[in-house]
Amino acid sequence: MLPSIRGMKVVYHSSEVPELHSPYLICGFPGSGYVGKLAIDHLIQELNANHLADIYSNSFPPQIVIRSNGVAELMKNTIFYSKALSPGNNDLLLLTGDSQPENPDSAYLLAEQILDIAAKFNTKKVFTMAAYVSGVFVDNPRIFGTATDIDIVNTFSEKNVFPMNKGGIVTGMNGLIVGVAKLLGMQGTCLLVETSGYVVDAKASKSILESLTSILGIAVDMTSLEKKAKDTEMLIQTIQQQIAREGLEYQQSNMPRKPSNTGYIS
Amino acid sequence: MLPSIRGMKVVYHSSEVPELHSPYLICGFPGSGYVGKLAIDHLIQELNANHLADIYSNSFPPQIVIRSNGVAELMKNTIFYSKALSPGNNDLLLLTGDSQPENPDSAYLLAEQILDIAAKFNTKKVFTMAAYVSGVFVDNPRIFGTATDIDIVNTFSEKNVFPMNKGGIVTGMNGLIVGVAKLLGMQGTCLLVETSGYVVDAKASKSILESLTSILGIAVDMTSLEKKAKDTEMLIQTIQQQIAREGLEYQQSNMPRKPSNTGYIS
Amino acid sequence: MLPSIRGMKVVYHSSEVPELHSPYLICGFPGSGYVGKLAIDHLIQELNANHLADIYSNSFPPQIVIRSNGVAELMKNTIFYSKALSPGNNDLLLLTGDSQPENPDSAYLLAEQILDIAAKFNTKKVFTMAAYVSGVFVDNPRIFGTATDIDIVNTFSEKNVFPMNKGGIVTGMNGLIVGVAKLLGMQGTCLLVETSGYVVDAKASKSILESLTSILGIAVDMTSLEKKAKDTEMLIQTIQQQIAREGLEYQQSNMPRKPSNTGYIS
Amino acid sequence: MLPSIRGMKVVYHSSEVPELHSPYLICGFPGSGYVGKLAIDHLIQELNANHLADIYSNSFPPQIVIRSNGVAELMKNTIFYSKALSPGNNDLLLLTGDSQPENPDSAYLLAEQILDIAAKFNTKKVFTMAAYVSGVFVDNPRIFGTATDIDIVNTFSEKNVFPMNKGGIVTGMNGLIVGVAKLLGMQGTCLLVETSGYVVDAKASKSILESLTSILGIAVDMTSLEKKAKDTEMLIQTIQQQIAREGLEYQQSNMPRKPSNTGYIS
Repeated sequence: MLPSIRGMKVVYHSSEVPELHSPYLICGFPGSGYVGKLAIDHLIQELNANHLADIYSNSFPPQIVIRSNGVAELMKNTIFYSKALSPGNNDLLLLTGDSQPENPDSAYLLAEQILDIAAKFNTKKVFTMAAYVSGVFVDNPRIFGTATDIDIVNTFSEKNVFPMNKGGIVTGMNGLIVGVAKLLGMQGTCLLVETSGYVVDAKASKSILESLTSILGIAVDMTSLEKKAKDTEMLIQTIQQQIAREGLEYQQSNMPRKPSNTGYIS
Repeated sequence: MLPSIRGMKVVYHSSEVPELHSPYLICGFPGSGYVGKLAIDHLIQELNANHLADIYSNSFPPQIVIRSNGVAELMKNTIFYSKALSPGNNDLLLLTGDSQPENPDSAYLLAEQILDIAAKFNTKKVFTMAAYVSGVFVDNPRIFGTATDIDIVNTFSEKNVFPMNKGGIVTGMNGLIVGVAKLLGMQGTCLLVETSGYVVDAKASKSILESLTSILGIAVDMTSLEKKAKDTEMLIQTIQQQIAREGLEYQQSNMPRKPSNTGYIS
Repeated sequence: MLPSIRGMKVVYHSSEVPELHSPYLICGFPGSGYVGKLAIDHLIQELNANHLADIYSNSFPPQIVIRSNGVAELMKNTIFYSKALSPGNNDLLLLTGDSQPENPDSAYLLAEQILDIAAKFNTKKVFTMAAYVSGVFVDNPRIFGTATDIDIVNTFSEKNVFPMNKGGIVTGMNGLIVGVAKLLGMQGTCLLVETSGYVVDAKASKSILESLTSILGIAVDMTSLEKKAKDTEMLIQTIQQQIAREGLEYQQSNMPRKPSNTGYIS
Repeated sequence: MLPSIRGMKVVYHSSEVPELHSPYLICGFPGSGYVGKLAIDHLIQELNANHLADIYSNSFPPQIVIRSNGVAELMKNTIFYSKALSPGNNDLLLLTGDSQPENPDSAYLLAEQILDIAAKFNTKKVFTMAAYVSGVFVDNPRIFGTATDIDIVNTFSEKNVFPMNKGGIVTGMNGLIVGVAKLLGMQGTCLLVETSGYVVDAKASKSILESLTSILGIAVDMTSLEKKAKDTEMLIQTIQQQIAREGLEYQQSNMPRKPSNTGYIS
């Protein structure tokens, strides 16, 4: 099983392969603040996306996870698909998952495995949603971006996306898969949203999903994610009140108001 | 040797293959509190189980272990077998071992290797005994469970097994092998027993073995394990008296009376 | 892609293979103080070297790096080439990169991969530029050296290169590739320059490049590297003034004036 | 090169294969106190043993080491051989090295690689010299032992070797290779000498070599090792005087007089 296919196993949900026309691949791997994963899971739900395939890997943590009805299964990544909502839109492949691989080699392999599947549907464009960890709570998180092609970077300003600076890095699968896509001749865009890094941040998640859907030109009902974003806002307020009570000094040393330009974590 | 078969080597005890009819595979990998390993070793002893095969792996710690007569050998996992005691019972494969693999990839491979052996005997059901680490000493440890199929989870209540909550995980081989079994089309059940995580816990071991034998419908003499359980009880009493003497504060911060629902470690 | 060629992928810049005559391979992998990388990048710039090939590896950190125009790509190593400036000189292969591999196995593989490419051009000699971390700031950093052949070591004194002592080690790619070159029948020389280990050290970088170009018998305009070296000097002066203000004790315990003979890091 | 033969490369010193008759393999991998390595290096020197082969591995630390004349090479293990001194003796293979592998998998592979070479000469018996780390300085270090066969363990008492207790372990190559030898049908003996773990211990090294040569029935001039042992004794006296001056408390908490039975490190 697993080892014979380079430590991975792909299980298709149905023997019937859907007909998709150069779908965009949209990824939200679990990472800092769960911003990407919350966004992709919301998108999958609102688009009523269909289950395409599960990817198991012996580089995911060696454990089982309990699903809602008490049933256990291995950790996995899952690809869903959604047919274009209108003629002007694109079909979509949507990737979510329980985990990222536990070592660098396997991260590269997983990126290839996912892109191999997308390549079968003739995918040309990949989008990922990542976290830009700033160490501060902000009211209106900014969206940053980088891409495999200068033409894409040049469109960022009209979408209120700040291009990332030279020398910056995006770690983990949300960055890596964009780089591997480039090597395979695809175009990739990585969006990043400011998040503190201290909480699961549905508010940042909502912001990055709004940015992505604007770029894709699709409309998605945000009600349920907005509700989660309100919860995040209340949590952050509680933390900030605690900090205020405990004095200004702690806040300054550990949670500077001004975002620094250092940490990028996907 | 080892590398040609993916870093593992299986040595059968005899060239004569026993005739087994879809035996259940029962696993007790060494983990927290040694609850699974003590239980499986007791079962092997009381059933007078026969030695089937040793599994060596280059992902076990690179060391030798000294056996009772001063003789050394590599760390290993061992499978025993036991023919059904009565017509209503099942043949059993019983897995015990010195160690779990030292990295995630090898844990997946070992799970497959063991299930490959079981598959040769047409095994359809796998049971594992794991620890539910709660950080507290309890008088009557509860049994938790998860399984690969909702039908199995639905039988837990009549056996006084508490189903695990959504999002919980079972780490290590006792969890993993159940997940890999599912991927290979087998059914798996993972039982977990509350244990403090502070001591080798023969009392928890006795509880989980009673739960397992009740599910399997077999009777096993528990005398020698009960004796070990008494020793565990005395050890725990000594620790609790020490804690009482040293004051309540330590107890509250480090060993809460109420079990938390957080740590699951196999 | 990557896995099929041992986790590496070489992408040639052009299908036209340049004609090179037993070029010397000069390496400056990123390491302590960036002394090797700054030197090789200066050499590539001043020689107007041509892009030969990029090497991607799934043992580089799983991340993308942002280039000057906001465009992202995978981390990589790059080989440039430069035809001999005059009949008495040698053609050169020049290796620079974003990163060293993240594990020992992959470091060996990358060394082999690079030497495989060089071997196609019949390379017989390899030079690397590494850091000799001394923990102190010095006005005139010394150059140390080691080599695969006693004949090379014997030429060090006339070039003001101090031979390294028995038992010393050079860690990382700048050391390793010299050792692997020896095993493949090539000659290797590793130069090391004293650096504090506390700063990116363009001054040390300038010193080691002067030593290398003297050995190679080529002249290179050092103006832009000298400017960077001035910046390093000013940074070091600032640090030393800070130390002086904060008292002599700190200086003595953490930054001894006399270089110790212990740390060699490439 | 390296990867095609499982990350190892064996370089024979001469194309002429020596004629050896079931030589004993004697190993002294570098470990705690360097007791095994000092002993094997002394044996190689006093027996005027011949260079048979070097073993390179991409799991040795990725670095070069400087030899006595300033020349660098990769880290390696080396096998020497020595013809029997008299008709009653055995030919010997003697293994020394710079390093042990950096991960468990590679430790198993190296053990196999070495035993593959020995098997070509029909080796039936393997001996290793390891450290029994006790945390204390003792005047007369005891020799402990374990073996693959009860017959060997039974001969320990007449050689003043204490058999190791059930459940004890010997970590690292000096233990591992004995276990792998057993799996390949060879007999293995691991001797361990008490050492503090605080110093390079030539005194312990001399003791274990005396024990080994007594078992092998060979006589070796110990003069140069005795001189090193005197140096170790003086070093230990200096440390003990320091401890005495600094008070008894430190000695009791950190360096108990009575050896504990816990740590076995090869």
